[in-house]
This record gives sequence, structure tokens and C-alpha cells, in this order.
Amino acid sequence: MLINVPETVVADALRGMAAAHPGLTVDVENRVIVRRDAPVAGKVALVSGGGSGHEPLHGGFVGPGMLSAACPGEVFTSPVPDQMVRAAAAVDSGAGVLFVVKNYTGDVLNFDMAAELAEDEGIQVAKVLVDDDVAVSDSLYTAGRRGTGATLFVEKIAGAAAEEGQPLERVEAVARRVNGSSRSFGVALGACTTPAKGSPTFDLPAGELELGIGIHGEPGRERRPMMTAGEIAEAAVDAILADLRPNNPVLLLVNGMGATPLLELYGFHAEVQRVLAERGVAVARVLVGNYVTSLDMAGASVTLCEADEELLRLWDAPVSTPALRWGM
Amino acid sequence: MLINVPETVVADALRGMAAAHPGLTVDVENRVIVRRDAPVAGKVALVSGGGSGHEPLHGGFVGPGMLSAACPGEVFTSPVPDQMVRAAAAVDSGAGVLFVVKNYTGDVLNFDMAAELAEDEGIQVAKVLVDDDVAVSDSLYTAGRRGTGATLFVEKIAGAAAEEGQPLERVEAVARRVNGSSRSFGVALGACTTPAKGSPTFDLPAGELELGIGIHGEPGRERRPMMTAGEIAEAAVDAILADLRPNNPVLLLVNGMGATPLLELYGFHAEVQRVLAERGVAVARVLVGNYVTSLDMAGASVTLCEADEELLRLWDAPVSTPALRWGM
Repeated sequence: MLINVPETVVADALRGMAAAHPGLTVDVENRVIVRRDAPVAGKVALVSGGGSGHEPLHGGFVGPGMLSAACPGEVFTSPVPDQMVRAAAAVDSGAGVLFVVKNYTGDVLNFDMAAELAEDEGIQVAKVLVDDDVAVSDSLYTAGRRGTGATLFVEKIAGAAAEEGQPLERVEAVARRVNGSSRSFGVALGACTTPAKGSPTFDLPAGELELGIGIHGEPGRERRPMMTAGEIAEAAVDAILADLRPNNPVLLLVNGMGATPLLELYGFHAEVQRVLAERGVAVARVLVGNYVTSLDMAGASVTLCEADEELLRLWDAPVSTPALRWGM
Repeated sequence: MLINVPETVVADALRGMAAAHPGLTVDVENRVIVRRDAPVAGKVALVSGGGSGHEPLHGGFVGPGMLSAACPGEVFTSPVPDQMVRAAAAVDSGAGVLFVVKNYTGDVLNFDMAAELAEDEGIQVAKVLVDDDVAVSDSLYTAGRRGTGATLFVEKIAGAAAEEGQPLERVEAVARRVNGSSRSFGVALGACTTPAKGSPTFDLPAGELELGIGIHGEPGRERRPMMTAGEIAEAAVDAILADLRPNNPVLLLVNGMGATPLLELYGFHAEVQRVLAERGVAVARVLVGNYVTSLDMAGASVTLCEADEELLRLWDAPVSTPALRWGM
């Protein structure tokens, strides 16, 4: 691994983010990443966070049109309430704060506690839970479904609603609507290695894959001999469509887990597009790349979000963050 | 690997690029990626290309403010002259075409032949060779130094010069100046796997690294037991500064080779910044991410480009491509 020592991996990365992105204010000691112009007068703020190891999620999504702040925890470990309260205090303009929480037990508990603490300080807080992964109903880390790729859609679209000055209850409502309209399915072709462990976190022999993998390498639905990109696309899309049958065109995220070459990810995207066309699902917008990663896991995930005209308009709105940028 | 069969990897990826990026026209059969609005009247066009497996280089750099077209070869294999001539014909507005060629024997020969063929068709062609890698003077694939990360700086800055309407000789001159002002050094922590071979292309045991690696896994200077991110940053920066001692602030690219998590890459970037500060080198602009990759190789490279005010202005100019976008 390209690290100094496991103990400083997150702090080192935050120093590196601070030096790379002049639009961010990074509090390395307290582990809070804030857009430089926060608080923005009259506007709702969005705060998210979660374990590190999923970059660019969430710190790479901080900036105008998306998150106001992000709180990175240790690798694959929830941040603590103190970080979230600091972040909320740094970005609240008085219009309130929306916490975007991926559905993992630690994150849910800590964001709940942070919301209480922030409200004690006079900050109005709303929460949205992201639970888009159709692979398993419960898992090692969750009660209910896991939060994965839809987090990007929630943060982008709710961020756009906040940026155009919508009040907290409407920003919260659109965030919930995006989550409710989104489903994901992931697959691993190789395990990931955490800095603390220094060896693969699970055992996935060459020539096998795990269908329905979680973003920490949690077990999915099935271990199978290697499949082609086309077969994997069919498995992923069909698992999603069994749960959500969109009537409107969708936003499509074809997401790399970390170690899958972009060359392969584009080829996989072509197969996902083929399967969606065969199933009669129209695609309105596409994003292909590494956005919600699992360190150096090999594999990919597919996320669909059924988008009406309002969601599409908010998706297209300008955004300027390290990892997502258009129109500004 | 997330592929169908090795034989269709490049074609599959091109289908996936076409469906992802409405700003590009992708000729899958002939393997040419062109910005949709080409040819642009009165403006010089830039054409690059090389073996596939380095994405987003070059196809991800096609668009306003950067490349006019790119020609992807098979994985780690030069494209053929026919692709380059097609690309030149598709983008030439009459103002001429600059070929941006990474210094590998196959690419050099094929772009030379393509230049002759294009000139026979009445297209004015200039060429710039990129040879920024200080690790080795000759290699498996090159006479002279290899072309790596500086390709991004050359394509961005010469692309900006073309976009603002500079004539061919000036676009060529600024491209040469960027290459002459740039140096790179890379390190591998793990090998890459080509689709055709299906197993690692070279042997790099866990716990060892290769200093001075090439972007196809060609041997570098030295095999060493694992080093810390800080020690690697010192080795890379010092190798570069032994060859180029900048007086002006530099553009800095901290580039992931493919499988290195962004979390680690940011931490490595922090160490590169520390070493540059200790050596008295000022950093004007920074880019951290996977830009010139080697499939799923673990590792990173550092590229410095000494930038005067003209280069800085052209670097900052608006660009709109799949992988690099700002100001538009």
C-alpha cells in the first residue's frame, strides 16, 4: 500500500485534499471538509459522511451545488457525532441542515446522536437515509438495505435544490424521493485490502466473483465462477428491475469499485446499456467512473434512479466539486 | 476481469464511451474518437493516440480546449497509421493538425507514416514527441525516454493554444516547450493484468516495489522492499529534480496507475507537497487522480511542469472533456 503507517492514513489523505482543492476548507485534526464559502446565506446546507475508503465519496462531493460538508471516519468506520456537529455548525446559515446518511448501523446511530446535539445548539436538522442496494435485505453492517451508489444521486440532486434556495422540508423531500426512486447492485471480482489489516479483507479466489457485494466487501447473494461483462450486466440490471420498474427515463451510474480499469468499466457500461435497451428502460443521463469505491476492490456497481423532469433539472444544475463538475 | 472476451475489449469500451459522452463522436469500427463539433473553423486540431489501457488518456481528453481526436490501439499496442489519418481528416479545418506522440517505438513509426499520408492528402501536419520519464534513458519499448504523465500537460496546454486560435507553428512550439519543461517518475506496488494474458504481466512480489516503472510495467531503476509514502515521494521528486531544477512554480500531477485507492493517492500527494516545499519548489496548480493509468497496476507517478505565465494562463483556460473539465 502507498501509505506511511495505517494510523495516519485518513489524516494524510486530508492533508493531501487540502493541498489539492483550494475550494475546500479542510480541518485535518477534527476531520471535517467544508466548502470554502460556507455558510451560504439563506440556503439549506447538506452534510454527509461515513467511513473512509470510498473516495471520492463524500469529501470529493463537497462544493457549490452538492455537499456543504463531509465527515470522514476511519477506514470503513463511521465518523463520530462530534465531527457531524462541527460540520453542521460550520455550514448552517440559519436555514437548516440536511444529514445524508448511508444505511449502516454505526452511521445511523452517530448521525442520530449528532442531530440531537446540533438541535440542542439551535441548528434545525433533517435526515435522509440512503438504502438503495437490492442485493440483500439485511447484512453484516445494516438493518435493512445498504446505502451505496444512490448516495451520489441524493447528494447531487438535493444539493441542487438547496443551492437554488429551496427550504429544508423541500430539500429533505426531494432527497427522500431520489432515494426511493433509486436501486443499486454491485459485483466484486477481487477483494480489497484495508491499511489496518494489510491483506485482503475477504477471500475471493481468482476465477470467481461475488454477485451483490457490499461496499465493504460484505457478502452478497452468490459466489459464482467468472461471468462475462454481458452476463454480469444482465444479473445486475435484472436484480434492480425486479425491485423497481421505472416508467420514466433513468439516471444511470456505472461505478467502478476501485481497481477496475476504466477501459473495462466502459465496456461494462456498453453491456448495461444493451440490457437496459432490451428491457425497455430509457436512459436520460449517464455517469461512468470511480465514484463510490471500496479501496482497491475490483468490480463495479450499477445504480438506476428513475427521474421525472424535476429530478432531471436538478441533476443538470451546475455543480463544482473535486469529483463532479459541470456548468460552472 | 470485467470483460466479454479479450478480442473485443477495445471495441466494447468504445461503445461504452459513445453512450456515455454525447460530446464525442466515436467511430467504433475504425477506432477514432472525435469531438462532436470538429472540424472547428480556422482552428488548429490536435490528434493523439496510443495503446489502450491508459484511460482516460487519450479518449477522455477529447473535447473543447484539449484534443480534437484520439486513436486507441489494442491494449498496450500502437494504433495504426490509418486511424491517425482518418482522425486528421475528420478534424482538420485547413489550419493544420498537431500530432501528440508519446515516445514509444511503435507510436513514433506509425505517427511518422500517418503524417506523410496525411500530407499527401493536403493536410498540414506538425508533430510533438513526449518523452518526460526520467527513470530510464532507453527501455524495452523506446529509444530515449518514455512518454508518460507530461502527455496530459502537453495536450491541455497545446489544446488551449489551438482553441484560442494560435497558428500551427505556435501550437507546436508551446507543445514542445511544455514537454521540455516536464519530467515524470513512476513507481509500481503491484503488476497489471492485460486482457490477452489474463495474468500479471510482470512479477512483483507483495512487500516489494519497483522504482521508475513504465506505464506498461517496463522495468524501472530498482526493485526495493516496500517504502513509506514519504520515502517514495522523496525518491520520485529527487529523481525529477536531478534532471530539471525549476525556477518558476510548477504544475504538479500526482497520478494513480489504476488500482491505487484515491485515499492513498491523496496521502501520497501530501508527501509530494512536503518534499517539494522542503526542496524549495513552489507549486502553482495541482491535479490528483487517475489520468495516465496502466490498467489495474497499483502505484503512482509524479509529473512536474515548470510553468511561466503563458503556460499557466493556457493551463487555466476552459476545458470540457470527459476526464478534465473546468470553466465551461
